[in-house]
Amino acid sequence: MPPIRLSKSLPSLYPWVTSPFIVSAPMRIMSGPALAVSVSRAGGLGFIGPGAKTQDALTNLQEASSLLKAPSTTLSSLPSTPLPIGIGFQLWSDDLATAAAAIQQYQPCAAWLFAPHHTADIQTWTLRIREVAPNTQIWVQVGTIAEVHEILTSAAQPDVLVIQGAEAGGHGRATDGMGLMTLLPEVADIVAMASSPGRGKIPVFAAGGIADGRGASAALCLGAEGVVMGTRFLAATEARISAGYQNEIVRAGDGAASTTRTLLYNHLRGTFGWPAAYSPRGITNLSFHEHQAGKPFEELKRLHDEALGMGDAGWGPQGRLATYAGAGIGLIREVKEAGRIVEEVRREVWGKVNVKVEEEGGREARL
Amino acid sequence: MPPIRLSKSLPSLYPWVTSPFIVSAPMRIMSGPALAVSVSRAGGLGFIGPGAKTQDALTNLQEASSLLKAPSTTLSSLPSTPLPIGIGFQLWSDDLATAAAAIQQYQPCAAWLFAPHHTADIQTWTLRIREVAPNTQIWVQVGTIAEVHEILTSAAQPDVLVIQGAEAGGHGRATDGMGLMTLLPEVADIVAMASSPGRGKIPVFAAGGIADGRGASAALCLGAEGVVMGTRFLAATEARISAGYQNEIVRAGDGAASTTRTLLYNHLRGTFGWPAAYSPRGITNLSFHEHQAGKPFEELKRLHDEALGMGDAGWGPQGRLATYAGAGIGLIREVKEAGRIVEEVRREVWGKVNVKVEEEGGREARL
Repeated sequence: MPPIRLSKSLPSLYPWVTSPFIVSAPMRIMSGPALAVSVSRAGGLGFIGPGAKTQDALTNLQEASSLLKAPSTTLSSLPSTPLPIGIGFQLWSDDLATAAAAIQQYQPCAAWLFAPHHTADIQTWTLRIREVAPNTQIWVQVGTIAEVHEILTSAAQPDVLVIQGAEAGGHGRATDGMGLMTLLPEVADIVAMASSPGRGKIPVFAAGGIADGRGASAALCLGAEGVVMGTRFLAATEARISAGYQNEIVRAGDGAASTTRTLLYNHLRGTFGWPAAYSPRGITNLSFHEHQAGKPFEELKRLHDEALGMGDAGWGPQGRLATYAGAGIGLIREVKEAGRIVEEVRREVWGKVNVKVEEEGGREARL
Repeated sequence: MPPIRLSKSLPSLYPWVTSPFIVSAPMRIMSGPALAVSVSRAGGLGFIGPGAKTQDALTNLQEASSLLKAPSTTLSSLPSTPLPIGIGFQLWSDDLATAAAAIQQYQPCAAWLFAPHHTADIQTWTLRIREVAPNTQIWVQVGTIAEVHEILTSAAQPDVLVIQGAEAGGHGRATDGMGLMTLLPEVADIVAMASSPGRGKIPVFAAGGIADGRGASAALCLGAEGVVMGTRFLAATEARISAGYQNEIVRAGDGAASTTRTLLYNHLRGTFGWPAAYSPRGITNLSFHEHQAGKPFEELKRLHDEALGMGDAGWGPQGRLATYAGAGIGLIREVKEAGRIVEEVRREVWGKVNVKVEEEGGREARL
């Protein structure tokens, strides 16, 4: 009757993180410095999301760095170097030179790489980041078994592999994704098989549909070393998000019926160029329903752009604006401070699952 | 830090079942009496699947009844009445009068109702079965939040609600399903909200993509009172399945890439009439790939029917026969005795999760 065993490498690399390892996802723009810092202060790992342009990484990291210097009432004492927050990049649209310069200057503890045009781009980014910031851990997000095999046989291995299930909000695999229930343990097995005494085992983190302690506990049972939450943190006080959008995250339920993957909202917002493998999940509203009913795109675009001027009324069932969110929206019923989210999830995991951290010399420490 | 709490009602109704409550799904034809009896003997609950015609329920129950009388070396002593196995029906195609007669004669402990033309049919079946066999518990399988609401507000409530995630093999929701990771906890919350002191809480069982102790543990964390495995038991020694089919379950991996939901195999087999809400997941092979490439149905049908005469070579990547299976196929690597499957899953769950069974008077017993 073995408990869930966690590797000893993570606690030494992220010493302020309290087990279980809880991460806030690098959601584009919405995961700003305030959210990331709050999550890390609560004993998790907060990621800053990609910005509207890569250059924003610099200002975001600068702001996070300042926030981290401010006195805090929370318990975890955070190291000053590497910076105890991570930062994410959208490889197909972000500029490597600009990203590398920001990473070199601020030395975040982790860089999260996602959505390359080609897997080879992940190699290029990994090697360049390791040159400028050897202590910055490389987190790579994938969503299929094929990608896992590609990554595991590549020259530059990531330090963490994030496996994203089909339940995830925002951009994920368009058509070849799968729920974490089967995808995660299969990936965990493949990664375990690929490990060697010399190289060790790459930790697998789970993302997609995890919104509370139940999902986090389930992910650990399925083989994750840690859990990533995105949509749950959209309903955090510190999220960089409009109230109308945030209200809709709290209001909506039944993610199977009320969310879908569609490129419509990207196109309404004028976003083109995502690699074909990806499509975002979001909460459907008038734009989508009228699109389904056959209303021409130009008309939908006009109405969408009008809604941009309506403030918070632009979102909601009768709204028209993009509301990227995961299928777990039905589990999110309240806006909370990010630190409280981390603490509540952690506490629920402690009650539900038996976790042991493997220590040096084969000894084990009970969680 | 609350552990996972399980209701006390199930242990009293199924006294031979050892916690956690592990169930073999009523897979059409393939879940025969031998499989069902082995699972119950191992301290789980085995279901006989629907037959080619409803009348087969009678012979299947008769055979199970005989098998249960045979001496056994396994530990659990099974009651003789009600019969410690369940039986499933496919409501759109099965005949209620015939089913009720079989249930009346053999008094199985549970009847599993699935795939009605209309939800009202579930009521009709439930009331009739309760008339002829008041001790037969009614298990109802659903796959959407909308169905859960319909069931919870209906006149005749089920005794158990089985929620099937999109990862499931065989017939499930065609287009509006979702992975258990988000679907299950949301259903658990809805059922908990609908419970009252007088009525209690309907136990929720999880099905779909659970193939080992990791998935079973995850399902319990997500709010299930018990877990149902289907595909895992296709690779049980006792499954009523061709070797070619079973070999393919063991061989195939990467369920996201190698399985899909399609009506093609139903149609090749001459099966029509499933309600539009349902479509089966299965492992793709030449029939599907050539269908995708545009080969006419008549030609695919001719080749399929030829493959019917090829024995075990009819299945596999170069085969053409239907291979209904869930997305968890990558987790199944060996044919095992059903009892061993139950025991291994149980043991792994014991190690991973903290379960408490609520007892009379508010006391609790540790698993």
